[in-house]
Amino acid sequence: MINNKIYMDYAATTPVDQEVLEVMLNEYSSEVFFDRQSSKYIKIQMDRTKYRLMDAINAKSGDVIFTASGTEANNLAIREHANRGRHRGKRLLVSGIEHPSVLNVFTALETEGFEVVKLPVSPAGIIDLEAAKKLVTNDTILVAVMFFNNEIGTRQPVEALGEFLNDKEIAFHVDAVQALGKAVIDISKIGADTMVFSAHKIYGPKGCGALYTKDQNHGYSICAEEIDDIAITGFGKAIEISESNLDNHIRHLKSLKSRLIDGLLKIDAGLSVIGEQEGSHPAIVCFNFPTRDGDGLVIQYDFEGICVSSGSACSSGAISASHVLLAIGMDPVMASRCVRFSMGLPTTTDEIDQLIETTERILKG
Amino acid sequence: MINNKIYMDYAATTPVDQEVLEVMLNEYSSEVFFDRQSSKYIKIQMDRTKYRLMDAINAKSGDVIFTASGTEANNLAIREHANRGRHRGKRLLVSGIEHPSVLNVFTALETEGFEVVKLPVSPAGIIDLEAAKKLVTNDTILVAVMFFNNEIGTRQPVEALGEFLNDKEIAFHVDAVQALGKAVIDISKIGADTMVFSAHKIYGPKGCGALYTKDQNHGYSICAEEIDDIAITGFGKAIEISESNLDNHIRHLKSLKSRLIDGLLKIDAGLSVIGEQEGSHPAIVCFNFPTRDGDGLVIQYDFEGICVSSGSACSSGAISASHVLLAIGMDPVMASRCVRFSMGLPTTTDEIDQLIETTERILKG
Repeated sequence: MINNKIYMDYAATTPVDQEVLEVMLNEYSSEVFFDRQSSKYIKIQMDRTKYRLMDAINAKSGDVIFTASGTEANNLAIREHANRGRHRGKRLLVSGIEHPSVLNVFTALETEGFEVVKLPVSPAGIIDLEAAKKLVTNDTILVAVMFFNNEIGTRQPVEALGEFLNDKEIAFHVDAVQALGKAVIDISKIGADTMVFSAHKIYGPKGCGALYTKDQNHGYSICAEEIDDIAITGFGKAIEISESNLDNHIRHLKSLKSRLIDGLLKIDAGLSVIGEQEGSHPAIVCFNFPTRDGDGLVIQYDFEGICVSSGSACSSGAISASHVLLAIGMDPVMASRCVRFSMGLPTTTDEIDQLIETTERILKG
Repeated sequence: MINNKIYMDYAATTPVDQEVLEVMLNEYSSEVFFDRQSSKYIKIQMDRTKYRLMDAINAKSGDVIFTASGTEANNLAIREHANRGRHRGKRLLVSGIEHPSVLNVFTALETEGFEVVKLPVSPAGIIDLEAAKKLVTNDTILVAVMFFNNEIGTRQPVEALGEFLNDKEIAFHVDAVQALGKAVIDISKIGADTMVFSAHKIYGPKGCGALYTKDQNHGYSICAEEIDDIAITGFGKAIEISESNLDNHIRHLKSLKSRLIDGLLKIDAGLSVIGEQEGSHPAIVCFNFPTRDGDGLVIQYDFEGICVSSGSACSSGAISASHVLLAIGMDPVMASRCVRFSMGLPTTTDEIDQLIETTERILKG
């Protein structure tokens, strides 16, 4: 609990871990400033983070490109796949429940002459694998599907999709921003060509995304002068902490989520969990409140000192039903009556119990 | 002096000011974390930086978009101008001495069907205003010229160019990354439609650029979730410090630069200053060493504990003559025999004297 307030929006962003901050502060010191001007020093720092990330996803080869955000990494990867593939075909497949940072690139590519086809998603919030396979034609050059959905936490069948695409000349892009530190990610089983991560989702700083690319001879380049090396160093520490305690972290988060689900379902108010829970994100859960507007609930929770979000965190501020909930077939009214709770490592069972009590009070008030 | 080493590459990047760092650390604290999740809090922080920047450039209206870097801001602005103007014409004018982050966008736009024309630059390193005017045709939609050149420090005639473009339907973009904190910038006299700045050039953090746009109803958008609000807050403090002491800072830097120029010219080795000094950047100076390779000199200085750069900082690592020096008409051999020195606020006269002594030793060694 921070200042008697409860944060339940860790899927949006996380506070920077104290150890990460200390590592960053050391980099900010004037003693280190001179070293940091050497390209060798920065390369060592970047390589350290790169290999920690590659270890974390079991990548034996390939490369990592650091960007300013997950959004930038998604942009880079998707545009590069489209550019490289354009002489072979114009068809791009993407799930309708991707993060806006992914969907926006596809929308832009559509206006530039590409054909964008949305992969169908079941009411359980998982892409329909067989339907997806049928949409893969000879002129398909790219398929993009996320690992965990960021709003409802559902796990997508990226391994099965990767296996299907494996022998085809089709790029496979996986946005794994919500997965790092929350699941075992094994790129050798997923077979993705590119994968995206973000530091601020795992107790690292904002301003640092990463694009893993299987291709070592990729065409990505960034300006050395502008690399936020301190953020990258912080990201490296965050990965180290996250990966060395992964099993414990997942266990902790899962138990919090179970407790929350049990508690909220016990309230006699018709709440229901959205999406398949099997294999889902250990700390994201989206609830439907049959009679309450999601945005209104977010404000009521805020009055009670609890920070949660409705709809996609990224598009919050806009009054519209979540594109994810619509894509899984919800009607707009029902979709507008949902709230996402997401727990983090600092979350306690006490906070979960308070969230349950507060919800009961709000619903009966 | 840091660890007995001398940093003379402030035009590449600057150390973060201690006060700026303290402001950022406060934002990183867990006490503030909860506040930072409110869009209102972030808006206030961003607005504070925005208005400080607008004050700094005497902008009475318009907007500021924060980006992850000056590069991103240049990209956004130039692409948006090209997109908006494409129905009116395809001709884009840009000086050949722009920063690579600007030139790269134009190169990309050229492959996308735009006509890119380079504005001629005099041997003194200043664009030829009359020649530039003649290149402005009816189908010209954008002109991009920087404020100070980053390699040789020359001041470009942005006011005169802005006045000429004023009554035409042509966008005017000014990269002012090197100008903030080093000169009085008056947008009302420049008449630029967009201007770009970067925090890490003025003792702020990396990971924060800014795009000023005269148009309040612009089409730029960024994902709120990924805004590096702490970097933006740090940038705001850096602007405050920079602007409240602008005259003193400029005076200090100018005197350091004079001392360096006088000292190096006194060495009997045929050194010469490149580019017009009148009105130039108070702390950037590029010297030609008639018999020494620039890259070799950078390494020799490094052995002596002095950090300087040859050619464009951003493209350093590549072995090629600076595009700026070639654009002002230098032959490639002469262009490869240049070193840029750039001073900063922490630079002392002692450091300048040591740099002069070291140079003499290197040249006579």
